[in-house]
Amino acid sequence: MRTVAIAGVGLIGGSFGLALRAAGYDGRILGVSSPATIAKATAAGAIDRGVSLEQAVDEADLLLLAQPIHVILETIDRLSGRMKPGVLVTDVGSTKRRIVEHGRAALGASFLGAHPMAGKESRGVGAAEPELFRGRPWLVTPVEQNELDALPHRQFLVWLKRIGAHVIVCSPADHDRWVARSSHLPQLLSTTLARTLDEREDREAILGAAGPGLTSMTRLALSSWPIWKDILETNGDSIAEALGEFQAALSTTARELKEGRLEESFARGAQLAGELLREP
Amino acid sequence: MRTVAIAGVGLIGGSFGLALRAAGYDGRILGVSSPATIAKATAAGAIDRGVSLEQAVDEADLLLLAQPIHVILETIDRLSGRMKPGVLVTDVGSTKRRIVEHGRAALGASFLGAHPMAGKESRGVGAAEPELFRGRPWLVTPVEQNELDALPHRQFLVWLKRIGAHVIVCSPADHDRWVARSSHLPQLLSTTLARTLDEREDREAILGAAGPGLTSMTRLALSSWPIWKDILETNGDSIAEALGEFQAALSTTARELKEGRLEESFARGAQLAGELLREP
Repeated sequence: MRTVAIAGVGLIGGSFGLALRAAGYDGRILGVSSPATIAKATAAGAIDRGVSLEQAVDEADLLLLAQPIHVILETIDRLSGRMKPGVLVTDVGSTKRRIVEHGRAALGASFLGAHPMAGKESRGVGAAEPELFRGRPWLVTPVEQNELDALPHRQFLVWLKRIGAHVIVCSPADHDRWVARSSHLPQLLSTTLARTLDEREDREAILGAAGPGLTSMTRLALSSWPIWKDILETNGDSIAEALGEFQAALSTTARELKEGRLEESFARGAQLAGELLREP
Repeated sequence: MRTVAIAGVGLIGGSFGLALRAAGYDGRILGVSSPATIAKATAAGAIDRGVSLEQAVDEADLLLLAQPIHVILETIDRLSGRMKPGVLVTDVGSTKRRIVEHGRAALGASFLGAHPMAGKESRGVGAAEPELFRGRPWLVTPVEQNELDALPHRQFLVWLKRIGAHVIVCSPADHDRWVARSSHLPQLLSTTLARTLDEREDREAILGAAGPGLTSMTRLALSSWPIWKDILETNGDSIAEALGEFQAALSTTARELKEGRLEESFARGAQLAGELLREP
């Protein structure tokens, strides 16, 4: 892996470049982005220089698409018919079925879907950091059994481990089902909670009397709509299923509230929440 | 206000003592608690010495009940018939209708319900701090129009302002309606989310693939059951109403998801969440 190219040098793409360097990668790192971002990313040491997408795919052994989902889909179209043998294209999109289907149709076995479960509130390459992926899951979603045995794939996985990511292999469908519960449902709960309070006539009184719990439960509602538009469009069926499950669970909670027997639910909830807090 | 007594010298009671001292209160501060807690609270400077509840009500001008809700109700029973004129009893319980009804029936106009919207994850007098109430709401729930004009009440409110609390006057019913939405509903959403994930067969996979958003949305699920048992028992009707409203809102979210038009909900949710984050 002598040359890596990163298309979209924001928080995730920039952090990947910084993480490779910090882990001892001494090949070239090319960036595909706007001139302003390329300047910032080069200054930060996340990439060596900016190139066009066409140059990137001509020169790189690994091309990481660290863009919004709809841009990843467009980039895959632009790469179609331009791939050399031995080059691996992978991505960081938050949903996997649609992207992997598109990537395989356009690029064949050169495309490997993936999704690092890392992030923070600040965005852009200015917020990038070499340790962003350490101890965090990096889900990898091949469609064939032996796909990860190919040399470019093996090299990519070695570098993921070197930057401290916890590689988890699963199918695109499993990925989308899991993140619907672990990420997309929590997002919609936070947004729905904040929206319903926003619509109330006694909004000001409720906000005035709010404690820190409400702030933490509505924090996700600040998430960027353009990013979530793509996620909701490409994982709508799994998310709808997760919402339906939660509706049923909330009916159970309402019944247990009425019957004065929520203790077991609190115990189970605390058990799971405690495990999440103890994880890195 | 020459003598203040605090029954229950934990995080809230202890912080009240420290806050009074930091704000220049130079009267006596008595504590009613277990010998171990009295020792810690005295060492921390939150109280001057421990006394029995009977001594406390005999000596104090202000008696703050900073106990769990069911203990506040029991303490009110023990105070019945022992009150001197000019003494104010107030509390910090998280629900107000039941406590105020009980307090007024037993102690008459000497009782004033109240609820500071402050707290943190650590509990006990060891976590107490003088700045806990600064910039935070302290809801006060009289039942008569001119109740707060009495001298002991005016003195109490002056000290609340001196310790930096933001005094909000409302009815016990308004209080319970508001906190059902701002505190009790978020708690049940967090608990329900954590509990449903805990019950799933693919629990480990979902936890393994979780990002930081899930951790923040399940953090409240760690809350202490004994405290919530009291809250759910004394505000069940308002909470059931808030749950019903949220169920309807979640159906709207599901419909907007299906129809691809969640943008407005995200915008309104982000608006409210941003306001909460900007508040102290």
